[in-house]
Amino acid sequence: MRAAPREVQEVLDAAIVKARRNQQGHPADYIPELARVPLDLTSGAVTLCDGSRLLAGDAETHRFTFQSSAKLLVLIGLLEERGPVEVFEVVGSEPSGDNFASLARLETHGPRPPNPLVNSGAIALCGELAGSVERRIEWLIRWAERLYGEPIPIDEAVRESERASADRNRAIAHFLKYGGILRGDVEETLHVYFTLCSLQGGVAQASHLPALLANGGVVPGGSERIISKRTVAIVVSIMATCGMYNESGNYLVATGMPAKSGVSGVIVAVVPGVGGVAVSSPRLNDKGGSVRGHIVLRELSRRLGWHFALAQDTRDPSPSDDSS
Amino acid sequence: MRAAPREVQEVLDAAIVKARRNQQGHPADYIPELARVPLDLTSGAVTLCDGSRLLAGDAETHRFTFQSSAKLLVLIGLLEERGPVEVFEVVGSEPSGDNFASLARLETHGPRPPNPLVNSGAIALCGELAGSVERRIEWLIRWAERLYGEPIPIDEAVRESERASADRNRAIAHFLKYGGILRGDVEETLHVYFTLCSLQGGVAQASHLPALLANGGVVPGGSERIISKRTVAIVVSIMATCGMYNESGNYLVATGMPAKSGVSGVIVAVVPGVGGVAVSSPRLNDKGGSVRGHIVLRELSRRLGWHFALAQDTRDPSPSDDSS
Amino acid sequence: MRAAPREVQEVLDAAIVKARRNQQGHPADYIPELARVPLDLTSGAVTLCDGSRLLAGDAETHRFTFQSSAKLLVLIGLLEERGPVEVFEVVGSEPSGDNFASLARLETHGPRPPNPLVNSGAIALCGELAGSVERRIEWLIRWAERLYGEPIPIDEAVRESERASADRNRAIAHFLKYGGILRGDVEETLHVYFTLCSLQGGVAQASHLPALLANGGVVPGGSERIISKRTVAIVVSIMATCGMYNESGNYLVATGMPAKSGVSGVIVAVVPGVGGVAVSSPRLNDKGGSVRGHIVLRELSRRLGWHFALAQDTRDPSPSDDSS
Amino acid sequence: MRAAPREVQEVLDAAIVKARRNQQGHPADYIPELARVPLDLTSGAVTLCDGSRLLAGDAETHRFTFQSSAKLLVLIGLLEERGPVEVFEVVGSEPSGDNFASLARLETHGPRPPNPLVNSGAIALCGELAGSVERRIEWLIRWAERLYGEPIPIDEAVRESERASADRNRAIAHFLKYGGILRGDVEETLHVYFTLCSLQGGVAQASHLPALLANGGVVPGGSERIISKRTVAIVVSIMATCGMYNESGNYLVATGMPAKSGVSGVIVAVVPGVGGVAVSSPRLNDKGGSVRGHIVLRELSRRLGWHFALAQDTRDPSPSDDSS
Repeated sequence: MRAAPREVQEVLDAAIVKARRNQQGHPADYIPELARVPLDLTSGAVTLCDGSRLLAGDAETHRFTFQSSAKLLVLIGLLEERGPVEVFEVVGSEPSGDNFASLARLETHGPRPPNPLVNSGAIALCGELAGSVERRIEWLIRWAERLYGEPIPIDEAVRESERASADRNRAIAHFLKYGGILRGDVEETLHVYFTLCSLQGGVAQASHLPALLANGGVVPGGSERIISKRTVAIVVSIMATCGMYNESGNYLVATGMPAKSGVSGVIVAVVPGVGGVAVSSPRLNDKGGSVRGHIVLRELSRRLGWHFALAQDTRDPSPSDDSS
Repeated sequence: MRAAPREVQEVLDAAIVKARRNQQGHPADYIPELARVPLDLTSGAVTLCDGSRLLAGDAETHRFTFQSSAKLLVLIGLLEERGPVEVFEVVGSEPSGDNFASLARLETHGPRPPNPLVNSGAIALCGELAGSVERRIEWLIRWAERLYGEPIPIDEAVRESERASADRNRAIAHFLKYGGILRGDVEETLHVYFTLCSLQGGVAQASHLPALLANGGVVPGGSERIISKRTVAIVVSIMATCGMYNESGNYLVATGMPAKSGVSGVIVAVVPGVGGVAVSSPRLNDKGGSVRGHIVLRELSRRLGWHFALAQDTRDPSPSDDSS
Repeated sequence: MRAAPREVQEVLDAAIVKARRNQQGHPADYIPELARVPLDLTSGAVTLCDGSRLLAGDAETHRFTFQSSAKLLVLIGLLEERGPVEVFEVVGSEPSGDNFASLARLETHGPRPPNPLVNSGAIALCGELAGSVERRIEWLIRWAERLYGEPIPIDEAVRESERASADRNRAIAHFLKYGGILRGDVEETLHVYFTLCSLQGGVAQASHLPALLANGGVVPGGSERIISKRTVAIVVSIMATCGMYNESGNYLVATGMPAKSGVSGVIVAVVPGVGGVAVSSPRLNDKGGSVRGHIVLRELSRRLGWHFALAQDTRDPSPSDDSS
Repeated sequence: MRAAPREVQEVLDAAIVKARRNQQGHPADYIPELARVPLDLTSGAVTLCDGSRLLAGDAETHRFTFQSSAKLLVLIGLLEERGPVEVFEVVGSEPSGDNFASLARLETHGPRPPNPLVNSGAIALCGELAGSVERRIEWLIRWAERLYGEPIPIDEAVRESERASADRNRAIAHFLKYGGILRGDVEETLHVYFTLCSLQGGVAQASHLPALLANGGVVPGGSERIISKRTVAIVVSIMATCGMYNESGNYLVATGMPAKSGVSGVIVAVVPGVGGVAVSSPRLNDKGGSVRGHIVLRELSRRLGWHFALAQDTRDPSPSDDSS
C-alpha cells in the first residue's frame, strides 16, 4: 500500500476529475436542504496516519451535513463508554440485505435492529444516551469534537426539516419502543438522532474520523489515544459488512475500504494503517450511495493498492477494475 | 501483525487446548458420514506466506470433507477463467441476512443468488462449468490441486449420501433453472456440486488455499502466481461479508479474518499479507459454523493481532475479546 | 337453514354451556382494563332478521369494549358516504396471511394496507374522516347508534389505556403517513381509532350490526334501510376472507359465518338471510380470537345448518364437525 | 336469488357479449399449447341445481384443459376418502396473500402449504394418493367422472409440455419433500399433478362440479349423493378465501361466488342452493385469472342477485357494480 502524500494528492486530484464526468444519480429530495444543493459540488480529502491532510475538488468551500456517516459517532461513543456487551444488547452486527430504513426485518427478525449503521440501529443507540435532551446533545457535540478533531456545528435548518419529514423514522422508533428496544421518549430520541444527522462540515473534518480508525484509535500524526483498539476493530468490521447498506458487499469487492455513506452524498472510508478518506458529492445511486463518491474511492483503491485484501505489496495494476 | 512461526505455533497450540474445553454444538446429521464422526476431533493449521506450515491438535490424522469451504474453488476458478463480469451475471456479491440454503430470498430478490458462498450461489456457478460431467469434475480436480497445493481425493460415500438427501438443494437448483439462472441439467449440476462438497483432506491441505489468497495469489514461499490479484481482492472481500452465512458480521467483528465455513466443521480464514488458517472440529453452532473453530480463530486474532482492522501495529492486548 | 327462535335459543344455550367447559387461552394483557376482566364471563346473543333477539349466558350483565369488531363501523360508514372507489384507494380487500398488526407487509406489498379489518387498514380509514377530532368522534357516535340500534357509550379508561400503550399502532400510523396513505394528523387519527375500539356494550347491542348485514341492510324486524345492498355485499365478503385475521380461512371452513373478532373476546358473525350473532368471552387463542366464541359459533353453524355453503336445505348432521 | 332457466340464459348470453368487448390480458405462455389457443374463444355454462344446463358463447366447440380448477378434484376425493383431519395435516386452509406458486411462504411459514388451491398444496395432496402411478391416475380418472358427471379425457400434449417446463413446480415438490410433507417420489407425484392439470373438456363438463357443490353434494337434478355435506362446506369455504389466489378477496367482494381459476382461462364458481358456473376465455390478468371470466361472473352476480351475502331476496340493482 502506498501513502506518499504527493502520490496520494495526485491520485485524489485525478479521481475527482474522473468522477466529475459522471452525471448520473439524483440528490436526496425528502427535505429541501438536500434537494437544492448545487449538484456538481465534488470534494475529497485524505488524512494520512502521519497527520498530513490532502484536499481536492471543492474541498475548501463545499459544506454538507454528515448525515448517516455520523452514525459512527454514537456507535463509537457508546462502545467506549459502555462496552460492546451493552451495545450489542440493543443492536446486532449483521448485514441485513435490506435497505437503510427497513421495518419489515425488525418485525421478522427483531426486536433488535440488525446493525448500528441502518436507521433503526442508530435510533436505538440514540435511545441509550442518558440524561436530558440537552445533556445528550452535549454528549454528541463533545464526541464530535473528539472524533472530527475540532468543534462541529449543527445545521439547524436541516435538523428542523428532518424532524418535519420523519414519518418513516418515527415509525421505526415507535416499533422499537413496542419491541422493548428503545429506552426513553420517542420524540426526544429522534431529536438527538436528527441532531446527529445535522452535524455539518467539509471533507477535511469528515476525513479525521476514518483516519483515527485507520490509525488504530490514535490521533493521526500524534500519540493521544482517542479510541481503544477493541472499539476500532468492532467499528471497522461493521463498516466493512454493513456500512453501505445493501450494496456493502459490492462496494467492498470494488474498493476494499470499509466505509460509511450519508444521504448528503458523503462517504468516509478507512484504510487500516494508512489513513482515512472523505468524499462528498450529492448525486446518489438507488441504494443511497454517492455516485461520484464511489468512483473516487475505486480510483484510490485501484491506483494506490488500498484494497484491504491486498495488503502484501504495492505495485500492481487494478485489482478490481471491472468487478461489479 | 505477528507471523514468527514459533510464536504462531505456540498460540495455535494454546488455542486448540482452549477450544477442546468447549463441548457445545452438534455435528451435522443430515447424512450419516457427518453425523458419526468422532466429536472431539479438533485440528488446526497455519500456512504462512513464507511457506512455513504449522500444525496442531489432531492435524496429522483428522480428515474431513471440505464441504462449503470448497465453494471458494469454483468461484476462484470461474473468476480466473471467465472474469468477474460473467460471474456476476449469475450471482451477486451481497450478504443476504438469511441462512445458507434460503429459497425465500431467491423468490423475493432473485433470480440471481445473493452471493457465491450460499448454496444457491455455488450451485449456480457449478451450472456454469462447460462440457460433460466428466470434464467438469476433471476441472474441479485440476483446480483443487492448484488451490490446495496437491491432489485432493473425493469421498465417494459422502458424495453419494449428499446426493441421496439433497431435496433442499434440488429445490434450489430447479428454482434457479426456472429463473433462467442455471444452465445445463439440474442433476448433472448437482453431481458436480456434491463432488465439490466431497473433496477430502486435512487442515494442512485446507490451509493452503487461504494462504494463497493471503499471499496475493502467489504460492506461499514461492513465486508462481496461481490467482490474479483482482480475483484475490474479490474473493477475500466476499469472504469478509458473506463467508460465514448469517453470522458473517458477528464473526468479522470478533476475528477480523475473512473466512469460509463448511458443514463438516472446517473453517478456512485469510490474514492478508500473513498467511492462511484452517481449523476443523465437527460440533456446529446454529448458523452452521464450528464452535471450536470460532474459538481458535478468535484466539489467533486476539493474541497475534491478526484482525484486519488493526494492521497498524502489533503490541496490544485483545482487540475484540468480548465483542459479541 | 333454521331460524325458529325457540330452536335458536335452545342451541345457543347449549353452545354456551359447552363453551364454558373450555379453559384454554389467555385474555389480552397489553392494557389493564382487558387483563383484569373476569375470565369466565361468556355471553351470546342472536338477533334474527325478524327482529327477535335471543340472549344466553352472561348476556344481561357482561359488558365489554367492541375493539376491532367496531372496525366494521368505519368501513360501513365510509362505504355509504364516499362509495367503494374512494375507500379502496386507501385500503385493499385481500387477506394477507399475516397477523393483525403486521408492518412488514406494508413495506413489502404497500403502501395500501391489505384490507380494512387489520389495524393498518382501520387506521387508514380513520384518517379519512373529515373535520376536527370532535366532529370525527361525533361521526363515530352517530354511526354507532345507527348500526348498533341504540346509543353506544365510550369507555374512557380503555381509550386512555389504548392511547398510552399504542407504540405498534403508532408505528403503523407513521408508516402509513410516510407512504402517503394516511391523511391528517397521526395522533388525532389514533385518537379516533382508539375511540372506535372503546365503544362499549353487551352482546345484545353487538349482535344488531351483523343482523343488519344479514338482513341486507334493512333494520331487523323493520323496513328502514340503513345500509345499501352494495355495502352489505362488500362488508360481508371482506368479513369472510379477512375478518378473523390469519385464521379467517380455518374459521370460515369451520363455521361458514363471515365474522369479525375483537381483542376483548367478542366475535360478531353474519348468517345472510337469517340473522346476526355476537358472542363474547375474554380468553383468546394465539391469533387473537375468543376460544369460547369459536366454540359457540361452530355449534350454531353445525346444529342450525348456518354454514353459508349449505344454503340448500336444513336437515343434516354436522357439516364441519372435525374439519380443522 | 333468481334461477329461472330462461332468465339465467338471457343474462349469461348478455354477459358473454359484454365480456367479448374486452381485449385485455394475455394467455399463459409457458407452454405452447396454452400460448397458441385462439384468443377470442369465450364460453360459459350454468348447471342449475335442478339439472338444467345453459350454454353460451363458444360453449359447443371450445375445449380446454381444466388446469388448476381441477385442484378441487384431488381435494374433494381425499376429503371424502380420508377425512379432513388427515388432509389438513398436509395442507392448511388459509389464504396466503402470495401468488399461486410461492416458495417463499413455504420457507417462512411452512412446512405445510398454506392451502390446497395453490400449487404447493395441490402437489402435496397429489403426493398423498396411494399405489403405483397407474393406480393414482386411475383414481383421478374415476373421481373426474364422478365430479364432472361423465368421463374426462387427458390432453397428453399438455401433460407432456407441463412436465417439460415444470422447474418451479419441481422446486416446490422437492422443497415439500425436504420439509417432510411430500410422501413418495417427486417425479411420480408431479406426473399425477400434471395429469390432473391436463383433464380436458368444455364449460358444460366443467360446470357440473360446482353445481354438485351448490347442490350440497347431490347430483343436480337427481338424488344421488356424491359428496358429503361436510366436504361441500369445507371446499366451498376454501374456494371463497383461496380460490382466486391473491385476488380472492377482491373477487369475492365483486361477485360473492366462491370460485376456482385455472391458467387455461377457466373459472368455476358456486352459487349455493342455485347452481354452478363455468366460464372460459384464455386472456389472463396479472394474478392468473381470466379477464373475460371475471366480467361474466360479475354480470351473473349483479343481475341475478347471486352474491352469497345477499341471500335474503332477489329484486335489487347491482350490489357490487363498482366495488373494486
